[in-house]
Amino acid sequence: MIDKSIINQLKGIVGEENVLTQKVDLVTYSYDATADVPTELPDVVVMPLDTEAVQKVVKLAREHKIAIYPRGAGTNLSGGTIPLKKGIVLSLQRMNNIVEIDAANLTATVQPGVVIATLNSAVAPYGLIYPPDPGTVATATMGGSVSECSGGLRGLKYGVTKHYIMGMEVVLASGERVRFGGKTVKNVTAYDFASLFVGSEGTLGIITEITCKLIPAPKYRKTMMGIFSTLEDAGNSVAGIIASQVIPATLEIMDNKTIRTIEDFSKIGLPVDAKALLLIEVDGMTEDVVAKEAEAVIEVLKKNNCQYKIANSDTERDQLWAARRNALPALASLNNTCIVEDATVPRSRITDMLVAVENIAKKYNVTIGTFGHAGDGNLHPTILYNKYDKEETERVHKAVDEIFESALKFHGTLSGEHGIGIAKMKYLKDEIGESGIKLMQSIKQAIDPENLFNPGKLVPFKEA
Amino acid sequence: MIDKSIINQLKGIVGEENVLTQKVDLVTYSYDATADVPTELPDVVVMPLDTEAVQKVVKLAREHKIAIYPRGAGTNLSGGTIPLKKGIVLSLQRMNNIVEIDAANLTATVQPGVVIATLNSAVAPYGLIYPPDPGTVATATMGGSVSECSGGLRGLKYGVTKHYIMGMEVVLASGERVRFGGKTVKNVTAYDFASLFVGSEGTLGIITEITCKLIPAPKYRKTMMGIFSTLEDAGNSVAGIIASQVIPATLEIMDNKTIRTIEDFSKIGLPVDAKALLLIEVDGMTEDVVAKEAEAVIEVLKKNNCQYKIANSDTERDQLWAARRNALPALASLNNTCIVEDATVPRSRITDMLVAVENIAKKYNVTIGTFGHAGDGNLHPTILYNKYDKEETERVHKAVDEIFESALKFHGTLSGEHGIGIAKMKYLKDEIGESGIKLMQSIKQAIDPENLFNPGKLVPFKEA
Repeated sequence: MIDKSIINQLKGIVGEENVLTQKVDLVTYSYDATADVPTELPDVVVMPLDTEAVQKVVKLAREHKIAIYPRGAGTNLSGGTIPLKKGIVLSLQRMNNIVEIDAANLTATVQPGVVIATLNSAVAPYGLIYPPDPGTVATATMGGSVSECSGGLRGLKYGVTKHYIMGMEVVLASGERVRFGGKTVKNVTAYDFASLFVGSEGTLGIITEITCKLIPAPKYRKTMMGIFSTLEDAGNSVAGIIASQVIPATLEIMDNKTIRTIEDFSKIGLPVDAKALLLIEVDGMTEDVVAKEAEAVIEVLKKNNCQYKIANSDTERDQLWAARRNALPALASLNNTCIVEDATVPRSRITDMLVAVENIAKKYNVTIGTFGHAGDGNLHPTILYNKYDKEETERVHKAVDEIFESALKFHGTLSGEHGIGIAKMKYLKDEIGESGIKLMQSIKQAIDPENLFNPGKLVPFKEA
Repeated sequence: MIDKSIINQLKGIVGEENVLTQKVDLVTYSYDATADVPTELPDVVVMPLDTEAVQKVVKLAREHKIAIYPRGAGTNLSGGTIPLKKGIVLSLQRMNNIVEIDAANLTATVQPGVVIATLNSAVAPYGLIYPPDPGTVATATMGGSVSECSGGLRGLKYGVTKHYIMGMEVVLASGERVRFGGKTVKNVTAYDFASLFVGSEGTLGIITEITCKLIPAPKYRKTMMGIFSTLEDAGNSVAGIIASQVIPATLEIMDNKTIRTIEDFSKIGLPVDAKALLLIEVDGMTEDVVAKEAEAVIEVLKKNNCQYKIANSDTERDQLWAARRNALPALASLNNTCIVEDATVPRSRITDMLVAVENIAKKYNVTIGTFGHAGDGNLHPTILYNKYDKEETERVHKAVDEIFESALKFHGTLSGEHGIGIAKMKYLKDEIGESGIKLMQSIKQAIDPENLFNPGKLVPFKEA
């Protein structure tokens, strides 16, 4: 428990109205969007308004050896924001200014609390977009998104968060403020610290400002739905589209369980007997090129025993995407607990992975709906169960273990976009080995020697 | 001087034919493409053929506290490969297998000694390219290029090396082999070590395998030359092209000094009175879209008092690019020493930087020709002088100092693509500050605690 005098000092730094200590507030900050992980109440929630305040909080926390848990909107899916060892939750949500939109240099500079969708609304009048688009764009903050290296639907064509972060300001464990990178596309001065901090899950420092790359917004798009009676045909279509050298903006898949559940949930007329659906959107700067790409996609679909639909209006497009957007809420409504995994495989192994997940669901008699980003091999096997049923929970845990085992067997990765946090830490060695773990520990110790920032996440340490 | 018994052990590890100790050979490995930096003879050059041999060499070197200088083709422009403290030059040129081309996943996996152009030739039959294209593509190796985070002409549209490296295998100072990343576009497992090693200039470990991203090769292109009577018109055209939301594949600039020198050198009919030239190439997957982009570019040129030429055939295109390719050899022929800098500014400050360089040349009465990648703000002020003239050399050094000062004043960076090496180390603090230097030192010490790999480069240490 943090001493009352420290709470008072924190109030002195950020103002009384930016410090929360009531239990009702602490509960709100004790968990995030992750199921099946421990939760813990922080001692205090501190909401700084500027970098100077962050520096002072860090110095104070360090002096008293109090853990700091940086937090954005709490949409994390690997338990990354949970204050495992109590201490300070440092909410960056009130540092939410868009510092600059620099259209000439195609960059924006933002404070960490800016919501991704807010940034996109602000740059839209310039005809620009910030492409990374996790499912949570409407609530997730840039700071959280950068810390997790969010992916999303457009990863295949446009890349993920790390491809858009050009520079940042960070407060280190010493309380010092450093800047890396900047507005130049090319910058090889020093180690690539900006990239190291992207996806570091708040374990290395507090990100207080972010400079990101913007691109001209595509002007035209064409959306299609492909309906398949076998997983193989769907998988072959994904491969065929890439082989035809069309890189769609989105190339999403959902399995039969997901299709049926969405249909039950929202009655939008999905083909409930289909083994798989693909949702494909091509986009570009001219109508012709988008039309040509759409034709090429349809050629591939035709060759793979596919019934397809083309959205001929924005309304039809919205209907198709409504199905995809409903996938997670529909599945989540099936039971009291919903684990969304993000095991990711090379694109060519998508069918193998879908079949593996299907077999795992049967083997352990658990409910799994799988949807996700087929174009970049990033699947979301989503497991629905009753967490109060101990026996079922055990079967679910075994199924999860086997899902990750399969992903690695297919030369994939534990996490495409949700992070390691606490949820996947036990599998880490299976992917990066003992040497990889040692390397992570040495980086963490070098930059945060007292394990001040987000302890217990991402980097496994033997407890002292 | 390395003990004879160690040389014998090295021969035992890699084979006698892969160890060089003759002075004539050592001299070859004592320098790279950088002017005006110290050179030094290594004790021995070792050319391993596989990762196991690299591991054994590293373990042996560590045991005897011998420095290791990893080296590709030696095209480095910041003194990054020079064996400052003697020891072992570890040439990776004989580890030059293309391990796999995986067209379905749009990846290639290569050993570090593969030449960039060789990789591109190998992936061309699949209709794919590896976009990073430093001027040295025909000789530079993938290992060297990844270690330096090479840029090149296509950085504006296609990004630089770091945007294409998906995974790697590295031998650490312990001799352990680790793998990071892989073939998935999305991977947030562990810290982003692949990005940390890109651009680390051989200071953290030996890269023994690289998995890189490929993209479909653009099928059409259109090349234009713009001739300007003021730097402002050229700069405004660069800004105007981006504002019109066309992102050219290349957008190159050269100043009057460079134009005149190329014309003297190769008599290809360049407009020697022009204050600046822009060379612009747009590319894409369909003829229509490329034609439209070219039209948009020409609209901008017209508005900015530009005389322009369009290449109507491959021959005409080759003629335009011949001018650009001749820039460096032509300038280099002017005197016995040629320093190629790569000070980089935000695109919007290109005109300011060109004017600043021009004024610096006048102020110190030195010969500077400037050309470079206007689209991404990456200029190459190229200084020609007689290194045997002490007084001129001093003026050159002052001019270089002031070029970097200007780049930073315009919120740019010391190095866009050549690296820090030894050439720019003294300026490092001006960009990243004391805290940034300390952070670099802590990373270096964490991963390479005995300063085994490429000591004296990139990371400043007080000499013990």
